[in-house]
Amino acid sequence: MTDIDDRPHRVVIIGSGFGGLFAAHRLRKMNVEVTMIAQTTHHLFQPLLYQVATGILSQGEIAPATREVLKKAKNTTVLLGEVTHIDVEAKTVKHNVGVLETVTPYDTVIVAAGAGQSYFGHEEYAEFAPGLKSVDDALELRGRIFGALEIAELQEHPEDAEPWMTYVVVGAGATGVEMAGQIRELSRRSLVNDYRNINPKDTRVILIDAGPQVLSAFGGELSLKAKKQLEKMNIEVMLNQMVVGLDEDGVTVKDKEGNEQHIRAKCKVWAAGVAASPLAKHLADQTGTKVDRSGRIECLPDLTLPGHPEIFVVGDMVALDDLPGVAQVAMQGGKYAADQIRRRTQGDKDGPAFKYFDKGSMATISRWKAVAKVGKLEISGFIAFLMWLFIHVLYLVGFQKQISTLGHWFVAFIGRQRAERTITTYQALGALHLISEYDRDQRLRRIIEKDDL
Amino acid sequence: MTDIDDRPHRVVIIGSGFGGLFAAHRLRKMNVEVTMIAQTTHHLFQPLLYQVATGILSQGEIAPATREVLKKAKNTTVLLGEVTHIDVEAKTVKHNVGVLETVTPYDTVIVAAGAGQSYFGHEEYAEFAPGLKSVDDALELRGRIFGALEIAELQEHPEDAEPWMTYVVVGAGATGVEMAGQIRELSRRSLVNDYRNINPKDTRVILIDAGPQVLSAFGGELSLKAKKQLEKMNIEVMLNQMVVGLDEDGVTVKDKEGNEQHIRAKCKVWAAGVAASPLAKHLADQTGTKVDRSGRIECLPDLTLPGHPEIFVVGDMVALDDLPGVAQVAMQGGKYAADQIRRRTQGDKDGPAFKYFDKGSMATISRWKAVAKVGKLEISGFIAFLMWLFIHVLYLVGFQKQISTLGHWFVAFIGRQRAERTITTYQALGALHLISEYDRDQRLRRIIEKDDL
Repeated sequence: MTDIDDRPHRVVIIGSGFGGLFAAHRLRKMNVEVTMIAQTTHHLFQPLLYQVATGILSQGEIAPATREVLKKAKNTTVLLGEVTHIDVEAKTVKHNVGVLETVTPYDTVIVAAGAGQSYFGHEEYAEFAPGLKSVDDALELRGRIFGALEIAELQEHPEDAEPWMTYVVVGAGATGVEMAGQIRELSRRSLVNDYRNINPKDTRVILIDAGPQVLSAFGGELSLKAKKQLEKMNIEVMLNQMVVGLDEDGVTVKDKEGNEQHIRAKCKVWAAGVAASPLAKHLADQTGTKVDRSGRIECLPDLTLPGHPEIFVVGDMVALDDLPGVAQVAMQGGKYAADQIRRRTQGDKDGPAFKYFDKGSMATISRWKAVAKVGKLEISGFIAFLMWLFIHVLYLVGFQKQISTLGHWFVAFIGRQRAERTITTYQALGALHLISEYDRDQRLRRIIEKDDL
Repeated sequence: MTDIDDRPHRVVIIGSGFGGLFAAHRLRKMNVEVTMIAQTTHHLFQPLLYQVATGILSQGEIAPATREVLKKAKNTTVLLGEVTHIDVEAKTVKHNVGVLETVTPYDTVIVAAGAGQSYFGHEEYAEFAPGLKSVDDALELRGRIFGALEIAELQEHPEDAEPWMTYVVVGAGATGVEMAGQIRELSRRSLVNDYRNINPKDTRVILIDAGPQVLSAFGGELSLKAKKQLEKMNIEVMLNQMVVGLDEDGVTVKDKEGNEQHIRAKCKVWAAGVAASPLAKHLADQTGTKVDRSGRIECLPDLTLPGHPEIFVVGDMVALDDLPGVAQVAMQGGKYAADQIRRRTQGDKDGPAFKYFDKGSMATISRWKAVAKVGKLEISGFIAFLMWLFIHVLYLVGFQKQISTLGHWFVAFIGRQRAERTITTYQALGALHLISEYDRDQRLRRIIEKDDL
């Protein structure tokens, strides 16, 4: 496939996550012209996002600037923008930064826009229980997690402090388990000497799931072990409980028998479900394909869309063969799409269908405990934790090339101190709209408005 | 001075800056009950704030949680809150977190609420040229500094990119000089390989001051050397230029002859003036004292207010003997107030008047250049830089006790890479209301709103 006017083949990549990044990296030495369009200026290492939310890492340590990561990919232009339209006939992508609109033409497009949080039709929960999908989310949650204890410390009566000291995590997948574990570590280790009116050890951490297991992706023995470990840490695990209500003051759950229970909790974290980027539906509508319940688009076995071999979809947006929503699927999908483009631009035949190679999965529970599954091998406890640590250290070193970051991470994660607890005034107060009447626009107010008092 | 009912003497400290922190630290072993009330949950090491704004340090590295810093001061309770009223007759402080109001009584109060940015009556500038006084400010500026180049990269025509590649810093004091220097370092070193459509080296950095010198606090030879050094770095230094207009698109300056000049610049930083916390005026109104042009309150030589020996004012809020607005004045003032309280609670006579011991001052210009003045000794260049480095390293080690942070800092500051460039979507887009119609509430919008496209 060469182009009529002999210009290089133009590839547009939508998204700077694992899928987009691995595609761009793979394309860097080919005779193609790559434009990556993403909503953020950084690549996010999402598996460690919970550590930003709980004060272990800074945002910079897990979210390097995309253009810095790709600076040696001289054929790649990185553009900030939210894609608002893909015209599959005209082969153009429309993207915006505020009012600035840009249209970028493509010969091949790789759509790797990922997934956001899903509230299963209850978008009104979002305000009171942020998800954990972006740096914005993590910093907002950091504000709420630490901010709630600030408010608790201010209460005159212990019973008024209770809801500020009760943390609810909805969803017992890897993110939920890790969040619950780290909030518990915070309250029983890092913060123990910091307050005078409250004792952070009295904090309740509640992990809720509608299903019968924690870490259901692992299942069986590992799920049981994980649950035991969580309970040993004094995390209240509530399974088979559907969230039927969620507002500023708390959460209402209902069990299979229909019994409802209300939990007073000011700080809630939503880790219950994902929904693919709306670009999936947008593409499906134009190409006569379908999206599944999670909004993922049904792809052909080569990750393209019917009648559109020039449109690749990779990562969390793909509905194909029950592929899991994990980083490895996105990475391998991105590389696969790049290889197909290479073959085509060289005039070769397309390669075989996309095949996901499962390298295994793991989740940490606390500092020394994790669970891991590699093929049929199931590992739990300290060994699994070491595996988890090793793999993440490898990533951080390979990616960030900053030994100092690694040192920082070790000190914070293994040690007691949380170096990244800083929350902005906006996050401390505004995000805790927990205090509902608080005017978010205080942020713009300057201390110099002298008539203030 | 013992209290009738034999309860410990109650000290309220307002502010968690250098003044408040040093007072609390000094009081930690005395038989007094201390409550520190501050608007932020962190102590801010303001001299390095410009490094957060320019991507060198994370917010956690210069703003540790106040309650963590004071965790060993068992007699100190740290409370989050904005002080809205000090009743000098009833001896109470009213403070708020949103709608949650608390009233704390005191026997002695140390008011150390510092200073904010002053726009000299032009508050409308604030929206377009943030100051650099808080972590919020630094992160907002980080978003604007890096965000502006993102927008430049998107422009089709080079002339449209120009205003996005022109940075104006208003005010050539230490903060202004350091900001200008670091923006220049960014554009000529850290970012050189990151863009495809623009060349960051083409960035203009303009430093404007109404006075005839840069770093006028140093004066004479050092000011001249600093100016030369800045110009060598290709920073345009515009002296004797008053800002007479500032909006989304740029800045208008006027010289002594009345000639006006308009500079098209999307990213502006305001480092021109300070105004004491409005609490100074609030106290002055109640005690019949006066505030000066910068809103600082006229104190007695022992830093108390006339007729109110139980009210100490320290740091940037004080108008006394031309004390400069530097960290050392606040630290020494905080310690002095604590010592007076010790004498009084022990039944001793008050000590002598407050006397500021000037340990010298310094400002960095670039990586290897600084100016320093210690007594009559004037130093510039590399030696001054080493002094600056040594003192800040001492501080960071003593305070943070985190060698890893230090490593990080060295790598980032001496090296090329900026590890903390991450800006949130909100900061990248909303803060750049540069794009004026951009809806700030996008922040709350969730990607799952499927009708979005």
